Formats: sequence, C-alpha cells, structure tokens
Amino acid sequence: MSTDRTDSIRTQALACRDAAQIVAELDTAAKRQLLLAMADALQAQSATVLEANAKDMHLAEAKGIQGALLDRLRLDPERVTAIAASLHEVANLPDPVGVVTRRETRPNGLSVERVRVPLGVIAMIYEARPNVTADAAALCLMAGNGVILRGGSEALHSNTAIAAALHTALQAHGVPAAALTLVTDPSRETMIELLQLTDIVDLAIPRGGEGLIRFVAEHARVPVIKHYKGVCHLYVDRAADIALALNLLVDGKASRPGVCNALETLLVHRDIATDFLPRAAAALGRRQVELRGCERTRMLLPTLKPADEADYAAEYLDLILAVRIVDDLESALAHIRRYGSDHTEVIATEDEDTARRFVRAIRSAVVMVNASSRFSDGGELGLGAEIGISTTRLHAYGPMGAEALTVERFVVRGAGQVRHPQSVVVQE
Amino acid sequence: MSTDRTDSIRTQALACRDAAQIVAELDTAAKRQLLLAMADALQAQSATVLEANAKDMHLAEAKGIQGALLDRLRLDPERVTAIAASLHEVANLPDPVGVVTRRETRPNGLSVERVRVPLGVIAMIYEARPNVTADAAALCLMAGNGVILRGGSEALHSNTAIAAALHTALQAHGVPAAALTLVTDPSRETMIELLQLTDIVDLAIPRGGEGLIRFVAEHARVPVIKHYKGVCHLYVDRAADIALALNLLVDGKASRPGVCNALETLLVHRDIATDFLPRAAAALGRRQVELRGCERTRMLLPTLKPADEADYAAEYLDLILAVRIVDDLESALAHIRRYGSDHTEVIATEDEDTARRFVRAIRSAVVMVNASSRFSDGGELGLGAEIGISTTRLHAYGPMGAEALTVERFVVRGAGQVRHPQSVVVQE
Repeated sequence: MSTDRTDSIRTQALACRDAAQIVAELDTAAKRQLLLAMADALQAQSATVLEANAKDMHLAEAKGIQGALLDRLRLDPERVTAIAASLHEVANLPDPVGVVTRRETRPNGLSVERVRVPLGVIAMIYEARPNVTADAAALCLMAGNGVILRGGSEALHSNTAIAAALHTALQAHGVPAAALTLVTDPSRETMIELLQLTDIVDLAIPRGGEGLIRFVAEHARVPVIKHYKGVCHLYVDRAADIALALNLLVDGKASRPGVCNALETLLVHRDIATDFLPRAAAALGRRQVELRGCERTRMLLPTLKPADEADYAAEYLDLILAVRIVDDLESALAHIRRYGSDHTEVIATEDEDTARRFVRAIRSAVVMVNASSRFSDGGELGLGAEIGISTTRLHAYGPMGAEALTVERFVVRGAGQVRHPQSVVVQE
Repeated sequence: MSTDRTDSIRTQALACRDAAQIVAELDTAAKRQLLLAMADALQAQSATVLEANAKDMHLAEAKGIQGALLDRLRLDPERVTAIAASLHEVANLPDPVGVVTRRETRPNGLSVERVRVPLGVIAMIYEARPNVTADAAALCLMAGNGVILRGGSEALHSNTAIAAALHTALQAHGVPAAALTLVTDPSRETMIELLQLTDIVDLAIPRGGEGLIRFVAEHARVPVIKHYKGVCHLYVDRAADIALALNLLVDGKASRPGVCNALETLLVHRDIATDFLPRAAAALGRRQVELRGCERTRMLLPTLKPADEADYAAEYLDLILAVRIVDDLESALAHIRRYGSDHTEVIATEDEDTARRFVRAIRSAVVMVNASSRFSDGGELGLGAEIGISTTRLHAYGPMGAEALTVERFVVRGAGQVRHPQSVVVQE
C-alpha cells in the first residue's frame, strides 16, 4: 500500500485538489482567458505534439495496432487545429459556476438560494484518443474543477506533450499545473489506486470500450458516471408516417454506424410491417446494411438471417440491424425494457397519445418522437460540448456538458435567525 | 453466490424493480391517494404495530440496549400518529416527476426538454428508528420510485408490522407490494448482496452512525449518497454583531446538541475575541456546555481544557465545543478546509465583502450568513421533507427532498429531422 508508486498518485491527487480550490474561485472571464491561452499554447507547440504523436504511432504500429484504433491515435496539423478550436468553443460556453438555480424567502425571513458549485476533482479515464486530453481538461476547468487525466498507454507521448503545452498556459495565468494532472504511470495498479482515493476524487468518468468501463466500475470506490453502451431502438408505430420513419431509420443506422447513438434494433408494429419493412430493407440494402429478423420479419423478408437473443442485446457499432415485428406499443416497450441500455429510444408516430405513452413509459436517458437517434449528443441537444453520455440514472442522465460537472448547494442569508428563539441570549 | 439467501434478495429486488415501473407511471393524484391510504392503514393497524414494537423493546432490553438507542426504537400511540401525520405531509409535497426544468427549440426545429424522472429502485439502509420505514418509503414512492428497506435488526418486528400495514394500502391501490420491499433477513451478507445489485438498485442511501455509513460505502457497488458527519463551524468575524453571534452560537450548540447540524467548533477573529469570548463562555456555561480552547483562547479563558487536533475533527454530538482564535478570515477558511466535513458552515459578520468571500471560498453543502446552523434541514430550507443530508458532492449536496430522488432526462420532439439530410430516402 505504501510503495513509491501509490504514494505518488496520492500526492499528485492531493496537489490537484489544492489547485482545484484555486480554479473553483476563478471568475468566468479568467477561465475564458485561460482556455483561450491553452488553445494558443497548443497551436504554438503543435510541432512538439506531432513529434510525440509520431513516436506513439511508431510504437503502436510496431505492436500491430491498425485500422480504426490506429486512426484514433493519429494527430496531424489539422487535428491539432481542431483540438484548439474546440478549446475556443468550450471557452465560449456559459459558465455554470455560481448560477443561482432557485431562490426563496422562507416565512422566517431566511433567504435560501441553490447555487451551482464545482464538483472538485474529476478523474477522466480514457483510451487512445489524444484529443480527449485537451477536450476533457477544458470542460472540467471551465466548470471550476481540477482534473486528473489517465489516458491510454498508446497515447502517452502525445498526451504528455499536449499536457505540457496546456501547462504553460495554466502557469502563465497563475493556476498551478496540478489543476491538470496527467497520470504518466501506465500501470493498472496506479489506476486502481486513483479510483479508490475517496477522500480526494469526487467523480470518475470512464470513456472508452465496455471493457474499460467495466474495469473502472468494478474497481472504483469513488463515484462513477458511466455509459456502457448504446443499444438504441427505433419503434415504427402503426400510425407512423412511412417516409418519415424511413428517413429516421436510414439516418439512425447508416449515417455513422460506429457511434453510440446509432440505431441497433428496429421494432415495427405488425399493422404497418407489410408496408414498411420491404421499403426499409431496400433502403438499407442500398447502404450495405445487413438485417437480421425475427420469425415474422422473415416471413415478409425470407432472405434475412434470423435474429436471436444475442442480436437484440448487441451494440453492433456496424452496418447490421436487428428487426422485430411487435403486436403493439406495449410489446415494443417490453422489448426495450428487456434489451435496452437506457441510452436513446425513438418512436415514429403521428398519434399524439401513442407518443405520450411512449415518452412516459420509456426510462432511457433520451427519448425522441419523430427525430433521429443521432441527435442524442451534447452539441446537438444544446449543451455546447459533451464530456460523455451517462446511462447512470443519477446526477446526470444522457449527454453531459459543463453543468453536469457542477452540483447545486445551499446558500442561506439571514439577520440572526435562530431555530429555538426561547433559548437565545439576547432578544431584540 | 447461489445460496437461497442471495437468490432471494435478488429475486426480491427484481420484483421491486418491476413494481417501480408501475409507481413511476402513477400520476400525482394517484400517488397522493396512495400515501393518504398508507397513513390510514398505519393508524388502523396501530395496535398490531405497537405489539410488534413491544417485542422489539423486550428483546432490546434483554440485550442490554438502553438510553437514547432504546428511545429511538420505542413507539407509542403518539409516535404512530406522528408517523401517519408525516405521511400526510409527504402526500402534499409537489410531485417532482414530470416537471419540465428546461425547454429549448434548436435551430433545426427540434424541441428539447429536460424532464424529471424517478431514479428507479432506492435501497435505504438504516438503523433502529422504525419511523424511517414509513417516512423513507413515502418519499421514495412520491418521487415515483420503488424502495428496498433494510432497517436495523433490533426493529425487525416493528418494521415488519409497519410494512404490512403499508402493503394493505398499496394493494388496495393496485400497486404491487414489492414496490415497498422490506428486507427481513438481518444478515450482513444479504445487505452486501443488496449493495452489489448494480443491475437493479439505482441508489443506496445509508442513514445512521458513521460505522454503518462506512460499511455501506465500503461494500456498495451501486451508487451511494452518504452523509458521514456534521462538523459544523461558526466563524465570528471581526465585523460581527456580537449579540447576533451569541444567539447563533447558543442556538447552534445548545438547542439540540445530538443532531448533525449542531455546531462543533467556534472560530473567532482575534480582533473581536476579547469582547466576544468571555460572553460566549458565560452564555454556554449557563447551558452546561464544556469549552475546549486553543492556546490563545486559554489565555483569555484560563480555566478551559486545551483543544487538540482530535477536538477540531470531532463531531461531539454533545454539550462540548472546540474554540479557536484565528488571525483572519483566511485562517478560518483554512481551518474549515482542513477539519470540516462539508456539511454546514456559518459566518457572523456585518461586512458584505467578508460574507461574500466566505460564501465563495467555503465548499460545504450549506453555507450560511448570520443564520443558525440548525436551519440546515430539509424542512427548514423549504424541501418539505428530507430523506437525508448529502455530503457527497454529486447528484445532491445538502438536505435531500423528493426532488433528489429523481433525475433530469431528455425528451426530444421533432418532425422527422435527421442529422445527415443528404443520406435520407425521401426528401420533402
């Protein structure tokens, strides 16, 4: 328990907590200047960052990493510029800190306000994308927090170079570098130690594959807000506008299948199935989407592979879609309750009562009527930026922006009120 | 892992989750009727409840339990009536479920609402007070949740009788009894199993002594909102109104020393110490409060015992107060940062700038200017009822009412919007 390594992560985290107190007290203008300076510093040190990234790419290739994974790791001048641009975006977000969300005067004259304060210290645990290092840091700092970044070991050189650039901006603005602490020890033991610093870390946010998120959830003793997966459903109701439903289906499944808000399962009311499904199959077929169907679906579309339990539970993240015909709305709801991941569900219907019933019965973080699941995203839903999408039904549920990195507390102002006036010393 | 016992708690919890779905869809009027019926049922079965309580009292006395602990366990007709009355109060609270907290139309015409939904299944872990069984159940149900109650084994007969009474009301209103599930197996193993049902339980709230709360925090894999202790501070600033500060001190320390919002430490600015401290000592002395002072305090009040580190960290819950003279506001803040428990801190000052600085720098759940710490309570701060006071800086921070048992999610309504219009099938 008291090896150098674990002492060191605890010491680093304590320094982050002290620095977080300074960040918490920065006003909006100071935080904006800081973030703009961070963007400038990153651009200024672009060559160093790219050099470090080349090292990571070289090592990754030597390890046999390729394809999408390798692409996520890669930086180029345009991507560095894009990271700087997203720091500018975060700098222009409304500052959640200090916002008074409610104000009441109690019968005894006490003024009671609910005011947003930063969470404190946030640990981000993520995988290969080096842009998360800057994006997450910016959002945490804008919300007045300190941040501890534990990225994937494949991106260690890139992350170190990015953090070094950002640190020059912090220090130029009188903020200790520890406010943005990069964990450079890649061991799992150190990550576990970090996840168990219950007296220092206020929240851990894992971002990455299901394996990483399960690992974090299993080992963390600090609070975790997680997003396991997005098994998003489109339910095409009997009263759906078929053309509209087809658009939602194609956009939801085929516009970017590798993301969590892509559709994975299509549920179709039996009364509309004969009209809808052949057109759906044709439209998706043109986009190379493989359909897997329930028995009734395969009676209409006999060439489909059968869909089984595993298909209904799958987050394919690929050009595959499970299709099931249901008897009615309640059967659709039961299917979603059983196989859903609490991420995003969509209904296509022109019937207001059916829409209302769907919205009321669905418990997922985002529920949509006649809109594409692909809008389930912090930017699209008006949060400005997103640090993740929570499927944890606590604190934040759905896309998380800067506000989700704060919490409301109570500020009470009085004129000497006491609870038991009979006990006091000096009566007025 | 697959003994009968653990199967049984999992089975019970699954039944609670199914029932919670029904509670989640009840409208406000239905929930009010249900809670009023629960109050009536409790009154109607008062004799049975008191008989069961007599059994618990008898067993507790035989085990040597006495004093305050025994008193907490005790029910009498008045206490049963008080429990029923508090069910009436909860029934009259505003319903947090379905409240639209924000509404926005995006540039693409999407309507985006944030709407409160129930958390799902809440596990309450508590100790000897049987009234929690009814109070917590009522608040959880009013917020649309299912509740699993795991009370102390000393109160098992009382809790079983109360739950049985409440169940008759649930069943009369078409709500499965499992919506209010009482864990009757008193073993710690079953409690641990309950705390690890991450796919069923959305939140665990422990209420009781520090030992219980630490046990829950250590074993839980489900999210926990906890309140360890209230080491509440009063800082008497140089610019304090002395009479006002004395009132806050006496009310905060002596009106009910055994509760978490009682004062435990007094910090006094050195410039006002000579005026303030002798009067404070006299006023508290008349109320049998023992003062323990820092070195400088003991130069003014030489008869005091010395205060050490343990005193500054102590939640006495008794007629004892630690006293320290500080050089200035910043020293007071540093003391609170070091020894505070994030519960409630008070400043007495007539200086607006100092008050503002104190409010801004203090990170506790409740911060007060010129008001008694004893107002740090859900009822006093306008929440109507309270299920606990969170010192976890996530989801809820400070007194938690019905609203803290819900979370905001996204409801999106469109007219067929898609994210990549170029990809769609049918253009308008």
